[in-house]
Amino acid sequence: MEAIRKTVSEKTKVPVYDADIRRILSALQITEDFWEIIFYSEVPIPAASEILKELNKNGYIEFKEESIVFTNKGKDLVKELEIPKPYYKKCPHCQGRGISLEDFEDVLKEFKKIAENRPEAIQQYDQGYVLPEVTVSRVALMANKMDIQNKKLLVIGDDDLTSIAAGLSGLPKDVVVLEIDERLVNFINNVAKEYGLNVSAEIYDIRDPLPERHYAKYDTFITDPSETKEALRLFISRGISGLRGPRCAGYFGITRAEASLEKWYYLQRMLLDMRVVITDMIHNFNVYVNWGYVEKTRAMQIAPVKRSPKREWYTSTMYRIETLEGFVRYNEPAKEDIYEDEESSTV
Amino acid sequence: MEAIRKTVSEKTKVPVYDADIRRILSALQITEDFWEIIFYSEVPIPAASEILKELNKNGYIEFKEESIVFTNKGKDLVKELEIPKPYYKKCPHCQGRGISLEDFEDVLKEFKKIAENRPEAIQQYDQGYVLPEVTVSRVALMANKMDIQNKKLLVIGDDDLTSIAAGLSGLPKDVVVLEIDERLVNFINNVAKEYGLNVSAEIYDIRDPLPERHYAKYDTFITDPSETKEALRLFISRGISGLRGPRCAGYFGITRAEASLEKWYYLQRMLLDMRVVITDMIHNFNVYVNWGYVEKTRAMQIAPVKRSPKREWYTSTMYRIETLEGFVRYNEPAKEDIYEDEESSTV
Repeated sequence: MEAIRKTVSEKTKVPVYDADIRRILSALQITEDFWEIIFYSEVPIPAASEILKELNKNGYIEFKEESIVFTNKGKDLVKELEIPKPYYKKCPHCQGRGISLEDFEDVLKEFKKIAENRPEAIQQYDQGYVLPEVTVSRVALMANKMDIQNKKLLVIGDDDLTSIAAGLSGLPKDVVVLEIDERLVNFINNVAKEYGLNVSAEIYDIRDPLPERHYAKYDTFITDPSETKEALRLFISRGISGLRGPRCAGYFGITRAEASLEKWYYLQRMLLDMRVVITDMIHNFNVYVNWGYVEKTRAMQIAPVKRSPKREWYTSTMYRIETLEGFVRYNEPAKEDIYEDEESSTV
Repeated sequence: MEAIRKTVSEKTKVPVYDADIRRILSALQITEDFWEIIFYSEVPIPAASEILKELNKNGYIEFKEESIVFTNKGKDLVKELEIPKPYYKKCPHCQGRGISLEDFEDVLKEFKKIAENRPEAIQQYDQGYVLPEVTVSRVALMANKMDIQNKKLLVIGDDDLTSIAAGLSGLPKDVVVLEIDERLVNFINNVAKEYGLNVSAEIYDIRDPLPERHYAKYDTFITDPSETKEALRLFISRGISGLRGPRCAGYFGITRAEASLEKWYYLQRMLLDMRVVITDMIHNFNVYVNWGYVEKTRAMQIAPVKRSPKREWYTSTMYRIETLEGFVRYNEPAKEDIYEDEESSTV
């Protein structure tokens, strides 16, 4: 185990723990599917791929066409290490999000209709959107936290169309979307016009500082960052720069598939350094629709077997933060590539 | 508003924000009950009490026997400031905890029967236990995180009897309880014997370092700390000192009623300084049964009206943490009073 850990750490530059190998051995007991292994193990994709390849080299597992299965030696290992099967059973009503959609049923219905015509996710901007129930649950979550009633909401990057769901709820005073993709900007503005929503979108590249007219103007922001360290810093600090003062809130989703717990640690340090406090972290709140370009991702290139995902597997934890007195609005231009680092793999 | 904020900050030594006053004005729109105001506003009790007293002095609210109600001047203020009513509607199935109890129904049934004879909460040790559904949900949560299957679980302070629910589930290899209250130690050991559970309890005072035989021996810990800064440091670092290595997990509940967001910030810094990462924070996961000694608490003494709570109101967010490589096992004796500081009020 120690040998595998070391090899994978060196090869991938992702911090790998015994726990990662154990979690993969756990997942392999109930699934032969690479993407489900990622879902259950919560190991970053590049590390998971290499661990599987090493387990194969050492004779514990076999790659059978599109499946990954234990050898007898692998079965013995699991028994010897007393590794339990995965157990994952969230509330069937809310899928573990904890949110009631009772008051948002009309919003969901309308949203689904609108979203049918949404622009498809494209790789160029690391896009990938969540299920409609998730988008509306975000609005319900912000409502439960009193973060959108009569509030000005800033949405940074909006392939999820959260702005439209928020607008349909009628709760916020104002919703502004900053988005790099012209297709989405036009789509959102057209829908807003057609439905008479207080929503407007404009083109914005996260690598640029937040323009003066959006600086320190909002009560709440929501964003879904790319997960390189540089992207995390930019997406989140742009959001914070948009906030009007202390005790304003921010929301964003962070995966395990593209961010190790070491990266989570880095992110949490960064948040505290900006003097914001984390108030909520809801596991697998965000569930993403399988995007069309998966065949072209690094994830697929490094996967030990090539099979398209059969079900949703890419999820993220929803973070909520609040600004405290003395919080920092960091608003410098980008310094590095925001799309790729050693843990990223869906671009 | 600024004048009230300043007065209350100086009087209570609790950091108070405009947002706190606004949240109280929000809560007052749907309840006249002091404890419900705490529930909805999430303002620490001493600060909330003083804010209410200042709002009263300034003619915005009246104290009518046991109720707190707006004056016309107060109603005008709420209109002028455009303060919305509270909205709080979690999933009705899991009460927002996100947990399924489907596989834990027998455990819950048995647990309820056992807990009928539990020792009552006493003030001396800042006790106060959660609803039986919550105790069992904790076990289900740990199971979902793979933190108790075949694992050694350390429970530090156990007026909630989490050890018994964990034992009844049959999942952990071993459960050890360290508890200051001899009544609870005896109760847990008697139940364990009667039901043949892998659970054992012994007397332990959190102010003392964790004994050698428990140091670095466990996979997971769970505790429900008193919330002075010193208590937070001790309960959590004792738990961490009990963990066997990196990528082990810890669970604990933190309130808003006795901890401002500034204290949450302090706690989060402390966690990161110990090189543990926060993985989950589930809002109001823990709901406490109203304890028998509420009349004798500081909360009741400082409350602007004296009415016993009519429903559960004292809740906490469930934190889950994981240790990373290089994490710190701080295990020094206590340096300060662990039960009281400016934000505490239920002792």
